[in-house]
Amino acid sequence: MLVEDLDTPALLVDLDGLEDNLDRYQRYFDEHGIGLRPHIKTHKCVAIAHLQMRRGAIGITCQKLGEAEVMAAGGVDRDILIPYNIIGAQKLARLVALARNTRLTVAADSEYTVQGLAAAAAEADVALGVVVELDRGRTGVGSPAAAAALGEKIARGPNIELRGIMSMPATPDMRPLIQETLAHFDRKGLPHPIVSGGSTSGAFMAHEIPELTEYRAGEYPVGGVGHYRRGTHSVEQCAGRVLMTVVSRPAADRAILDGGSKSLSAAVYREENGSSIVGHLVEYPQAVFSGASEEHGQVDLSACDDKPQIGEQVQVLPVHPCPCFNEHDQIFAVRGGQVEAVWPVDARGQIR
Amino acid sequence: MLVEDLDTPALLVDLDGLEDNLDRYQRYFDEHGIGLRPHIKTHKCVAIAHLQMRRGAIGITCQKLGEAEVMAAGGVDRDILIPYNIIGAQKLARLVALARNTRLTVAADSEYTVQGLAAAAAEADVALGVVVELDRGRTGVGSPAAAAALGEKIARGPNIELRGIMSMPATPDMRPLIQETLAHFDRKGLPHPIVSGGSTSGAFMAHEIPELTEYRAGEYPVGGVGHYRRGTHSVEQCAGRVLMTVVSRPAADRAILDGGSKSLSAAVYREENGSSIVGHLVEYPQAVFSGASEEHGQVDLSACDDKPQIGEQVQVLPVHPCPCFNEHDQIFAVRGGQVEAVWPVDARGQIR
Repeated sequence: MLVEDLDTPALLVDLDGLEDNLDRYQRYFDEHGIGLRPHIKTHKCVAIAHLQMRRGAIGITCQKLGEAEVMAAGGVDRDILIPYNIIGAQKLARLVALARNTRLTVAADSEYTVQGLAAAAAEADVALGVVVELDRGRTGVGSPAAAAALGEKIARGPNIELRGIMSMPATPDMRPLIQETLAHFDRKGLPHPIVSGGSTSGAFMAHEIPELTEYRAGEYPVGGVGHYRRGTHSVEQCAGRVLMTVVSRPAADRAILDGGSKSLSAAVYREENGSSIVGHLVEYPQAVFSGASEEHGQVDLSACDDKPQIGEQVQVLPVHPCPCFNEHDQIFAVRGGQVEAVWPVDARGQIR
Repeated sequence: MLVEDLDTPALLVDLDGLEDNLDRYQRYFDEHGIGLRPHIKTHKCVAIAHLQMRRGAIGITCQKLGEAEVMAAGGVDRDILIPYNIIGAQKLARLVALARNTRLTVAADSEYTVQGLAAAAAEADVALGVVVELDRGRTGVGSPAAAAALGEKIARGPNIELRGIMSMPATPDMRPLIQETLAHFDRKGLPHPIVSGGSTSGAFMAHEIPELTEYRAGEYPVGGVGHYRRGTHSVEQCAGRVLMTVVSRPAADRAILDGGSKSLSAAVYREENGSSIVGHLVEYPQAVFSGASEEHGQVDLSACDDKPQIGEQVQVLPVHPCPCFNEHDQIFAVRGGQVEAVWPVDARGQIR
């Protein structure tokens, strides 16, 4: 099947770009002796997770328990980190069931979370790893001393095992906080085999925090508008695209596409000049994808010499690949204009 | 099953509030002799569409062909309007197949669209209704004269039938444009049995455009933050809610919920004071749901006397119910704290 025969909107992943990204990020982390633990919340796709594991990933990151269940069921079950406070009887029962067959680590930032994990793990008699999350404005404990105090409670077990610390993000300016937290851990004799940083945007600076043992990155396989603008990804390396069709040309300088926020997500990218865009047209780089309602994309063609006609297909880079992939049930994996495979977005909609 | 036993995040629809909205909006349109044609892109749920039809809706509106297929398959097949330019061989083949068993009307704003519709309808020998869309900044023809000129082309048939005009939105200030367009139609002897307006926010002003024969409204059954703020819906009438759990209290005045943009969508509501919120907590009206990442909701509790504790459930009104419902596979239909039914979000993800 040819890409041009696909009905639109359709989520594409260009395999050449994808493989290039998987290789070059894995190579960087290998060179620096940091474990790469891809975050599957971006692609949500078992097939892509297997490609990452085969290249040397130490395991995966899942933001929600449901994502971890889907990945484990798909055979990506060697080592899973869920950087989230797992709360409540229903989720705890599922968590310890999953831990029977998977090396599992979760995050905690409160005694409430730790007590729940400990009780559930003890009742099921499974081993559960726990890392303490540092506060960077979302969840997390507020100080290195508080992190170590919570670490001590985790270390008391019996069925939970203190495995270290994590933060999101982990930019070089955070090194002092991480060092201080580890010093508190060391003073108390607490183990920290895992020191986990994250975020694709800072990935190539991970070596500036030598304390990091592993790194969580989600968006690097497919990129997006921000990655293209920042230069971490060429347009070819922005492998995740939404194929759309021009359905209206209401004026000489306007095109309307058949995809909007329900194909791209509602994410918006702010340009340096203060304007905002919701996507980037690969074939018409001068076009400005300036806005979208749910099913309509609004493109300003004023700056284009060539302009797309009604019925023409275009490929659009999303602003934020994670919610974009969550809008789709299928990924069309393409190479050189051919559809090589159709992959389910296996963990789409796993919010629990 | 009790609501408090549901795992979170979970999409709730309060049945008392839903039924109240269905009744009062149907009553308004009945009183004014305007057909109510609910837009199912909000709830995407066959069960709710049937409730709307039973109360007197003249038919439904679907934004995409895939939504229409799902609704027709679910028995909501009496009369469907798709206010969209249907382009391309694959969609046209599906469209005329659907038209065999359903009274179907689509919109057009170009000769390209009209020619595609006419050719597909002739080849399949089915009748397809077409309305001309007026331009209000998205799709649509640019002037009353252009609308009538396109109407003439549609009226030439043979298998397509000119049924009138539509606009989105249809606020009272648009009456002159609608009148002028109808005058152009009348001068050419073109029929316009359908004059269709739309948008929940202006619904109760529909009677100020007596030319309207029918009205498309999507959000009125479930409401949201904007409806609550504007006063068209009391908090009880805001029937669509996302049940969430507090998973962290990183500081005395902050709570983190287990739902973010992947449960609510990324829609943002701008308050009159310039600040923005992403949801409203029913049980803690003084709380400010100020931001969200995909799986974390960030709530400012500074103004709250009572503050929710870790493990506590809260109900959150979404800013934009349409993309919010699209994040969920199931609706928990609740009344008085009991789950009365679990409904699929049948047309979730129907982007084609």
